[in-house]
Amino acid sequence: MSKVFSSVTMSLDGCIAPEFMQLDQPAEIWLSQWMELQKYVFQQRFFRESLKLGEGGETGQDNRILEETFNRTGASIMGKRMFDGGEHNWPDEAPFHTPVFVLTKEVRGPWERPGGTVFHFVNDGIESALRQARDAAGGRDIRIAGGANAILQYLNAGLVNEFSIALSPVLFGNGLRLFDGVDQSRVSVDIVQAIHSPMVTHLSYVVSGTCQWE
Amino acid sequence: MSKVFSSVTMSLDGCIAPEFMQLDQPAEIWLSQWMELQKYVFQQRFFRESLKLGEGGETGQDNRILEETFNRTGASIMGKRMFDGGEHNWPDEAPFHTPVFVLTKEVRGPWERPGGTVFHFVNDGIESALRQARDAAGGRDIRIAGGANAILQYLNAGLVNEFSIALSPVLFGNGLRLFDGVDQSRVSVDIVQAIHSPMVTHLSYVVSGTCQWE
Repeated sequence: MSKVFSSVTMSLDGCIAPEFMQLDQPAEIWLSQWMELQKYVFQQRFFRESLKLGEGGETGQDNRILEETFNRTGASIMGKRMFDGGEHNWPDEAPFHTPVFVLTKEVRGPWERPGGTVFHFVNDGIESALRQARDAAGGRDIRIAGGANAILQYLNAGLVNEFSIALSPVLFGNGLRLFDGVDQSRVSVDIVQAIHSPMVTHLSYVVSGTCQWE
Repeated sequence: MSKVFSSVTMSLDGCIAPEFMQLDQPAEIWLSQWMELQKYVFQQRFFRESLKLGEGGETGQDNRILEETFNRTGASIMGKRMFDGGEHNWPDEAPFHTPVFVLTKEVRGPWERPGGTVFHFVNDGIESALRQARDAAGGRDIRIAGGANAILQYLNAGLVNEFSIALSPVLFGNGLRLFDGVDQSRVSVDIVQAIHSPMVTHLSYVVSGTCQWE
């Protein structure tokens, strides 16, 4: 049974990215905070290979979890801002290797990348994107890749079955909060697993009362 | 070596209590959200005995952790609001059984309760309260009991050595955030431990560069 899930790195105070950049703020500050949050990821071999960051990297538990998350994913969905951020930063061989559905107002034909990633631009809402992703996922799971707003829309609509959080030992004070605006009367979760690792804590949750796809 | 620590239950979105009650909001809503957050605590034998809530309760890992936290504590420090909330709700035999230092502007003599809890009211700031707590703790650790604001003051002042969080699978959307206002340029943490339990995840952190007491 195919699942809809999300998987993000979150700071201990609930942020998945630093505060959006002000025009007068040097990009380095934003980037260094983000790198601090994601530090463990950049040290994993699987991630380094995916993003063409060079040889080497850890091959332990953190790496295995990243690889499992990639392998279960048959299609991804992302918001426009996440796509815009990645469009010029991902390597030519974008790291998805599956169809990716971008929630956007922009009308644009599919954008095919070497290595199997095809970006499809969806203009008619989250449910349409999910239907298309399900058709394209070949029975594997569908990842709501981000950003926070896209994840929240799917979560509040009862369409996310489960999510995992890599809880990073970082405090932002301010930032883009994953659950800001969550409808707590509708979204109820249970813990499935917590795995300790020296750099990050891997937490898995299931969401109650969500749609199950045969 | 005596440590300064805090130990709280936090929602997955970083809150340790629901949003403060509005005047037109029934107390039941606040209370039911808070009970949802603290659900696992009310099922533990140690807590039930401490608060005189009646017989029975779990005696497993969650209970052991609560008991260890109590046993390591030689003195507690709390904010005025936490004291005000507890003053009329704790049983006569207040659940601390040690000296408790209350940060307040109120001038008031010590308030001794049956069972060894003595509340001392401190008017000259967090460092004075900590000195007094250390003198009273008999070599055991000092707990910054809460609320969020008291914990944050000690954290930002570099006076908290370590903290534990029982991460509850609950989303508040809005609420009193533990780390709201944290000075992220000063407070840097590492994970020590993550323990999975079906109702809550027990996370332990150490804070870098804090004061060590001989």
